[in-house]
Amino acid sequence: MSTTLNRLAAVIESRKPENGGDPATSYVAKLFAKGDDAILKKIGEEATETVMAAKDVRAGADASKLLYEVADLWFHSAVLLARFGLTPQQVLDELARREGISGIEEKAARKE
Amino acid sequence: MSTTLNRLAAVIESRKPENGGDPATSYVAKLFAKGDDAILKKIGEEATETVMAAKDVRAGADASKLLYEVADLWFHSAVLLARFGLTPQQVLDELARREGISGIEEKAARKE
Amino acid sequence: MSTTLNRLAAVIESRKPENGGDPATSYVAKLFAKGDDAILKKIGEEATETVMAAKDVRAGADASKLLYEVADLWFHSAVLLARFGLTPQQVLDELARREGISGIEEKAARKE
Amino acid sequence: MSTTLNRLAAVIESRKPENGGDPATSYVAKLFAKGDDAILKKIGEEATETVMAAKDVRAGADASKLLYEVADLWFHSAVLLARFGLTPQQVLDELARREGISGIEEKAARKE
Repeated sequence: MSTTLNRLAAVIESRKPENGGDPATSYVAKLFAKGDDAILKKIGEEATETVMAAKDVRAGADASKLLYEVADLWFHSAVLLARFGLTPQQVLDELARREGISGIEEKAARKE
Repeated sequence: MSTTLNRLAAVIESRKPENGGDPATSYVAKLFAKGDDAILKKIGEEATETVMAAKDVRAGADASKLLYEVADLWFHSAVLLARFGLTPQQVLDELARREGISGIEEKAARKE
Repeated sequence: MSTTLNRLAAVIESRKPENGGDPATSYVAKLFAKGDDAILKKIGEEATETVMAAKDVRAGADASKLLYEVADLWFHSAVLLARFGLTPQQVLDELARREGISGIEEKAARKE
Repeated sequence: MSTTLNRLAAVIESRKPENGGDPATSYVAKLFAKGDDAILKKIGEEATETVMAAKDVRAGADASKLLYEVADLWFHSAVLLARFGLTPQQVLDELARREGISGIEEKAARKE
């Protein structure tokens, strides 16, 4: 179990309008208030910024730049999951299910 | 600490060419052999598929579809991190650092 | 009127299954046969490759690399338009409608 | 030759700082002033919005929604091209070069 991801999920959950999240003071509550499309746009944005950061690191930038962008991408993924009634724990469970040599090779078989 | 993410990182690490990963039998070893651009393209692809899945769920598809796509996105993020000498644990540490009300509001302040 | 874009649209149209396009010999017919999601994934992919190419050009690659990726992006946009019964000409008409100082400032007002 | 795309390119060119573009009054001048990354983020954003719009049209939205997003994507592609000293005309020339049955099949051969 990832304590950090579960705590993050709990904080995000508390920002939902029905749980008292206030769009005026919370970034996550604001995303929830804006709706699906605002969250999905962030996924596209953060993925693009992750790609840009990796290129920047290759061109000499500090690796922490990539780390921050992946953190942003996972953070907004967690908001998206919450929006759809899912949790990071379920993603970890799915990754665990696929894990191991056989799991990853199964993925290779599926994807190519 | 996320046992799953750390185990996943260890498996990915073992697929690096210098650790004996074989592109002929391992999907991850193949990605490493292809290089940065192949991995970055997967980030773009999986983010797009995540957005598509969310729309599909709203149109009636099972929520598990979105779960699988986020798992794919996080899986390829872990491959990208490994490629740049980073770990999922460092992403979790960064998320923990930002966590809590103050952390998320700090993010809001930074992003907007 | 863009002769090139209109000719491209005509070729794409001829690749639709109902117009005799053969997935066994035509890349576009194959995309149409696979359906919406295959085309949408290409939009995400080509946009990612465009971003990567721009970064590569800044790092020393020839500018033609970026040109090829934008051509790929516009090409697949034209396939997407055809899939939805739209044409590049309609996109040009929309751009013409927005054009001029007032048009672009109107966009600024709308987007920000 | 596409009159619309060439006129659009001319307007964009006039918004460059060295041509007197003013970030305070022009959206394009502001993008140029912000630099490469701001423009590349827009490519990622508009591609994501194009994917979302296509899904929305399938779920019942008017097809014009997709048209507007492709126009946004091409518009920002033109800004990106200008940033790198390229023109929409060069993209059209590249598309014309690939055009025709042989051209598109050549692409299929190259891509797969």
